[in-house]
Amino acid sequence: MKLYSYWRSSASWRVRIALGYKGIPYEYRAVNLVREGGEQYAPTYVAEVNPLSQVPVLELEGSPPRRIAQSLAIIEYLEERYPEPPLLPSDPWLRARARQLAEIANAGIQPFQNTPTLGYVRNVLRGDEKAWLRHFLDRGLRALERTARETAGTFLVGGHPTVADVCLIPQLWSARRFEVPLDPFATLVRVEAACNALPAFAAAHPDRQPDAPKGS
Amino acid sequence: MKLYSYWRSSASWRVRIALGYKGIPYEYRAVNLVREGGEQYAPTYVAEVNPLSQVPVLELEGSPPRRIAQSLAIIEYLEERYPEPPLLPSDPWLRARARQLAEIANAGIQPFQNTPTLGYVRNVLRGDEKAWLRHFLDRGLRALERTARETAGTFLVGGHPTVADVCLIPQLWSARRFEVPLDPFATLVRVEAACNALPAFAAAHPDRQPDAPKGS
Repeated sequence: MKLYSYWRSSASWRVRIALGYKGIPYEYRAVNLVREGGEQYAPTYVAEVNPLSQVPVLELEGSPPRRIAQSLAIIEYLEERYPEPPLLPSDPWLRARARQLAEIANAGIQPFQNTPTLGYVRNVLRGDEKAWLRHFLDRGLRALERTARETAGTFLVGGHPTVADVCLIPQLWSARRFEVPLDPFATLVRVEAACNALPAFAAAHPDRQPDAPKGS
Repeated sequence: MKLYSYWRSSASWRVRIALGYKGIPYEYRAVNLVREGGEQYAPTYVAEVNPLSQVPVLELEGSPPRRIAQSLAIIEYLEERYPEPPLLPSDPWLRARARQLAEIANAGIQPFQNTPTLGYVRNVLRGDEKAWLRHFLDRGLRALERTARETAGTFLVGGHPTVADVCLIPQLWSARRFEVPLDPFATLVRVEAACNALPAFAAAHPDRQPDAPKGS
């Protein structure tokens, strides 16, 4: 299968972690979201890969190839097709809590930091883009911290990585990038260290992708 | 089980549809998000139900009761525990596409219309809240329409309702409320009519909830 990805896209990063953790081989297709106004707007990408001009997109083998977008939909697909090792707990309530945490990142933080949102804040509202980012990152991380405390073990939900951890890692990286103080997030930062000790998480880091700028 | 809900909350509405469609009885607990600054901020609600001051919350029976927040996490839980009638197709790729459509609404539209976001746009950025709402509703509905065209039958994905339809209905209601023209969304409006002909969808409408204002 092929993954259309951008090194610094937090949603692409999530899918890279899931693919790596499950040991699924894939072809990396870089889509530069910045260069020349964004390759995601190129006519061939819009026509053939994603009319919504987003990454990540997972392309399944077959003729014609079938595609899936939206990182959590992709991860649920991978979980169903490649159940081992799992990224959801077996207990029904803990499964729900792992998904709840993932959605706090996916719907509660990431939408506020993506390119079209920041463009509207900057260009239409003439707002302070960095203050906006910090506000929603801090607010979302507080929600994650409070929610995670009820279920955290070594990872956000018990003793094994789940989709919640997959979503956490890129958000903490964004928080550092935009200088959000991490002192209130002891649980999250502790879990992050446990994740980063796993090869699949480490290999999915933006700096290790083929389209990362040299020397980054 | 108990559902903490607000009549006009689009995320609560999604869960009401899922519960009704699966024929699961539940107790309705109204949380007024507006009155006296919002009951979701009341100390007992924060301490006992949801520290994040949000609806919906599904409370499971037991001692102590266990709770799940985030509408899509709740719906996935219901799908696993009460698989019939299903809200996901059986084909793996179509399951993924149903979730993809649900996430376009959940992460691509709803975060831009919730109360804290609008508060920031209005009070901090001094922006035009209605223009903001219309922009993100129109953009998200365009994404839904383009994506749905690939899989739509009577419903967004084939011939039976899925989680995608569950998320569509409240978004179209919001679009009408904020006067977003629906002409470009022929597929969505056609599917909406099919959904509203089903008793479970009709019964979940805001106007039919116990906490709806009289005469609404």
